[in-house]
Amino acid sequence: MRIGILGYGNLGRGVENAIKYNKDMELTAIFTRRNPKDLKTNSSVDVVSVDEIENWQDKIDVLILCGGSAKDLPVQTPQYAKMFNVIDSFDTHAKIPEHFKNVELSARTAQKTAIISVGWDPGLFSLNRMYANAILPNGKDYTFWGKGVSQGHSDAIRRINGVKDAKQYTIPVESALEAVRNGKNPELTIRQKHTRECFVVLDSGADAQKVEQEIINMPDYFVDYETTVHFISQEELDKNHAGIPHGGFVLRSGKTSENISHIIEYNLKLDSNPEFTASVLLAYARAAYRLFKENNFGCKTVFDIPPAYLSSKSAEELRAEML
Amino acid sequence: MRIGILGYGNLGRGVENAIKYNKDMELTAIFTRRNPKDLKTNSSVDVVSVDEIENWQDKIDVLILCGGSAKDLPVQTPQYAKMFNVIDSFDTHAKIPEHFKNVELSARTAQKTAIISVGWDPGLFSLNRMYANAILPNGKDYTFWGKGVSQGHSDAIRRINGVKDAKQYTIPVESALEAVRNGKNPELTIRQKHTRECFVVLDSGADAQKVEQEIINMPDYFVDYETTVHFISQEELDKNHAGIPHGGFVLRSGKTSENISHIIEYNLKLDSNPEFTASVLLAYARAAYRLFKENNFGCKTVFDIPPAYLSSKSAEELRAEML
Repeated sequence: MRIGILGYGNLGRGVENAIKYNKDMELTAIFTRRNPKDLKTNSSVDVVSVDEIENWQDKIDVLILCGGSAKDLPVQTPQYAKMFNVIDSFDTHAKIPEHFKNVELSARTAQKTAIISVGWDPGLFSLNRMYANAILPNGKDYTFWGKGVSQGHSDAIRRINGVKDAKQYTIPVESALEAVRNGKNPELTIRQKHTRECFVVLDSGADAQKVEQEIINMPDYFVDYETTVHFISQEELDKNHAGIPHGGFVLRSGKTSENISHIIEYNLKLDSNPEFTASVLLAYARAAYRLFKENNFGCKTVFDIPPAYLSSKSAEELRAEML
Repeated sequence: MRIGILGYGNLGRGVENAIKYNKDMELTAIFTRRNPKDLKTNSSVDVVSVDEIENWQDKIDVLILCGGSAKDLPVQTPQYAKMFNVIDSFDTHAKIPEHFKNVELSARTAQKTAIISVGWDPGLFSLNRMYANAILPNGKDYTFWGKGVSQGHSDAIRRINGVKDAKQYTIPVESALEAVRNGKNPELTIRQKHTRECFVVLDSGADAQKVEQEIINMPDYFVDYETTVHFISQEELDKNHAGIPHGGFVLRSGKTSENISHIIEYNLKLDSNPEFTASVLLAYARAAYRLFKENNFGCKTVFDIPPAYLSSKSAEELRAEML
């Protein structure tokens, strides 16, 4: 299976890296909007300007779109689904129906296969919510995120006057998680589910107290949470907070009789959010190519994909070894 | 969707009970090998002798086979897949390939849809092992069971001379589970993963010490485990150990770079093993009927079923609400 990558940020690098664990795949080219000569890749693969991408239609089986959900993917996925089988990690939950419609039109017309919103949330978390809801129709869902780095919140802190650099961790409240696990079906406010911990490097001469107040009172991002701010040096930030860990918990608590409850829990603990997301994208790239070879065209989501299509093992092997 | 149940034990009663949470389904009949008049059901549904089952082919959309894996299902599933769409919970892992072959032949010939080995293990645990392996090819799997009642081990104790009644709990070793969760990739022996706790009621005059020795040294069942035996009264057993709870943990620990590890965990905590298993069977009954209506015949496993087929929601609803 010949894989192409479009966009060489953290996620693109993650895909480049994860491919080596998938023996039925090879990385054929990385496409970029930058000058290809300026890209330092971790492999000896072809680096190609995105302007030439249409010449690669016969050389790529699945193109993995590694751009952002805000501006890149709403344009790129419908555009490249006209030329390639594509996978994206579009994660603006509210806009998924619209994105699906656009990609479906392109892929269906071009007889290509596209799978959108692949990753862990949306993606694996969605799958687990869906399975758990189908099995326990009478129940209650909970999702906790973290402990992990929120890029959006880190960026918001960095935009504050006097801040040189920052990293924000979203942390699930352990006691809330335990209450759910123990079947107590708590009603939880935003503040009761997560706390936020910020590591901030100040510009020289900046007023720490002012910056702290600005963070903890920031609307949408922090004001509704218990927020802790630590001021540290750039060296300390670089040394102890360079990673992009993340993860979270999806739980459903449901009843099947008066006093009979069940808890279904799925959780992830990820040292690197982009490397893990890349690994999910590759498994779904395998599925997309198989569907394409069966003439099963159009736009799909994780809900539509038979699990076996993700695996490099045959149906016989899966039944014998994994069932 | 019109559901039939064959076999009215714990699992059959679980299906009867769980149907009320699935508004797109109705229970049409319970089929039994016993005299139908002797069956006390929890609903006002028709109770029919299995000898008359072939007259019900036009009245049942999916037949749920609630017999045992040792003797019932190897015969029943191939037999009734000639007349009905069927679901079973066949759980003898080593014999799944043979069972699949037999059911496939029947269902394919009769143009019916069958899904075998549905439940939580095999079933949801298998699914999670498979997804996690496809996403993290470079890793290690762990499965822990419990805390829960093992019927097989409870039965084995009851067969000992001097034992009136007994219940056995399988308990995962918390420290082993924590080591896996912390990414330590431990090599675990049987003894390091689970302990066994037995609650035993003696016949009057039985020798407690002799019974205890017989339990803890029993080959296959107990000798390889740390086993604790408590002797209690029948009243205490009936009062505190009447339930059939179970559950467990499926974990995969995998690397995507030298020092980058990820943990995927799925766990279940079930107050009633048969009621939960019944709930899984019903979700897959929905899927079987949909596949049948699409002329997608033959024998399937959980690996073959697109997740969306389990849900009563439409694809649009799932994308908007659950992705």
